[in-house]
Amino acid sequence: MTRKFKLLIEYEGTRYHGWQVQPNGLTVQEVLQSCLNKITGEKVSVVGSGRTDAGVHAEGQVAHFRTVSSMTTHQFMMAFNSLLPHDIVIKNVAEVPDDFHAQRSAVRKIYRYTILNREYPSALQYDQCCFIQYPLDVEAMSQAKVYLEGKHDFSAFRASNCEARNPVREIYKIDISKKGDFITLDFDGNGFLKYMVRNIVGTLIMVGRNKMQVPDVKTILESRDRNNAGPTARPYGLCLVEVFYNENVEDSQK
Amino acid sequence: MTRKFKLLIEYEGTRYHGWQVQPNGLTVQEVLQSCLNKITGEKVSVVGSGRTDAGVHAEGQVAHFRTVSSMTTHQFMMAFNSLLPHDIVIKNVAEVPDDFHAQRSAVRKIYRYTILNREYPSALQYDQCCFIQYPLDVEAMSQAKVYLEGKHDFSAFRASNCEARNPVREIYKIDISKKGDFITLDFDGNGFLKYMVRNIVGTLIMVGRNKMQVPDVKTILESRDRNNAGPTARPYGLCLVEVFYNENVEDSQK
Repeated sequence: MTRKFKLLIEYEGTRYHGWQVQPNGLTVQEVLQSCLNKITGEKVSVVGSGRTDAGVHAEGQVAHFRTVSSMTTHQFMMAFNSLLPHDIVIKNVAEVPDDFHAQRSAVRKIYRYTILNREYPSALQYDQCCFIQYPLDVEAMSQAKVYLEGKHDFSAFRASNCEARNPVREIYKIDISKKGDFITLDFDGNGFLKYMVRNIVGTLIMVGRNKMQVPDVKTILESRDRNNAGPTARPYGLCLVEVFYNENVEDSQK
Repeated sequence: MTRKFKLLIEYEGTRYHGWQVQPNGLTVQEVLQSCLNKITGEKVSVVGSGRTDAGVHAEGQVAHFRTVSSMTTHQFMMAFNSLLPHDIVIKNVAEVPDDFHAQRSAVRKIYRYTILNREYPSALQYDQCCFIQYPLDVEAMSQAKVYLEGKHDFSAFRASNCEARNPVREIYKIDISKKGDFITLDFDGNGFLKYMVRNIVGTLIMVGRNKMQVPDVKTILESRDRNNAGPTARPYGLCLVEVFYNENVEDSQK
């Protein structure tokens, strides 16, 4: 009988060409699939909740896979973590009903973008933040982000090669907070287009540097034209924090 | 006229064979000296507050150097940070009186050791903590550390090849705290012998695992015999947080 498992995955994305298997570089999905192949002897797909770009990290990526193995969830977790490289870790394994799908069942995601804003960079957190040496006006950024909350056509903030058919997404909330020299932007939404978070951050940074004004963000959003938004912010600062699922397809840990 | 400068340095030690110049591998001191050579054209020593071992990090290492350059402190900081690799950063440059000596004038140091204590490691913080999968009894560790606070002969916790003539040091305080799955041990003292912090941590881990009892730590300390203490804890978890100097040799930022 085929069983279905859900993985909760943390990765440091610096060494990887993103989540999705691709011909030109090592990806997180590829590493997990080859690891699973070693564990079960089966050639199966590990299906993620969505792609993450090269260099982007995850504290809580979710994926599923099918297997005929009779191993327990705990045995899977131990086997994965003993075989995986140090920058990919399985935090939890759960057996899920057959109708669970890591991508299609996902109803909500949280991404965090971290900016280090001071005169000198950080040696200890170099790979996990975006260093901006020009002073940022966090108050202006917090005013501008309000235009982006809610349900909108985010065409102005998607990558030119984004393949999603529908450019409408709902951002429930963007939380911007400052702690010491670190500014964090938490994006909570029902889904995000390709480069959407990084393009929004790049635009908010322009506002923070006073190179764009607060109301410009509304104009950019309504233009639906990518050429009007700011540059794509660097991937290192971005982390997929959590993916949420409807209760009816939630883990059955029997 | 020769001027003297004090550097405040952050480094991610994973790539380095420690602070001190040595024939067999790249060190932080060597990188700083070659960088200073490029900036000033002079061949000068960068004298640190003390060595750190291979793999150990620093948030606040201090060093001094002499130069005939007329550059300002800010110019030095910008020049260093534009030339240094991403895992070494200069956080501050100050001009100091001629009697300031980064090592001999240091009166107090704080080191932090970070343990991750749960069933699975961390992908995002792999290089900056020590992963212990066995449950640790933090309460027992906190009872045991009390024996080590104060002025003692720490021979039982020094490396066999430690070159210090006097094995007596004073630990003002060891703070052990738990936040989520991370246990941090902050060591505040007037100085530390080679491997002393890591050997103390290795011993407290044995207590936390119930492989040694709380009073054993007193017996080990009094034995002055390195063979009785626990193993040397891994370097990745260790970070030199701050070095303190007497006020009379404090920065003159004129």
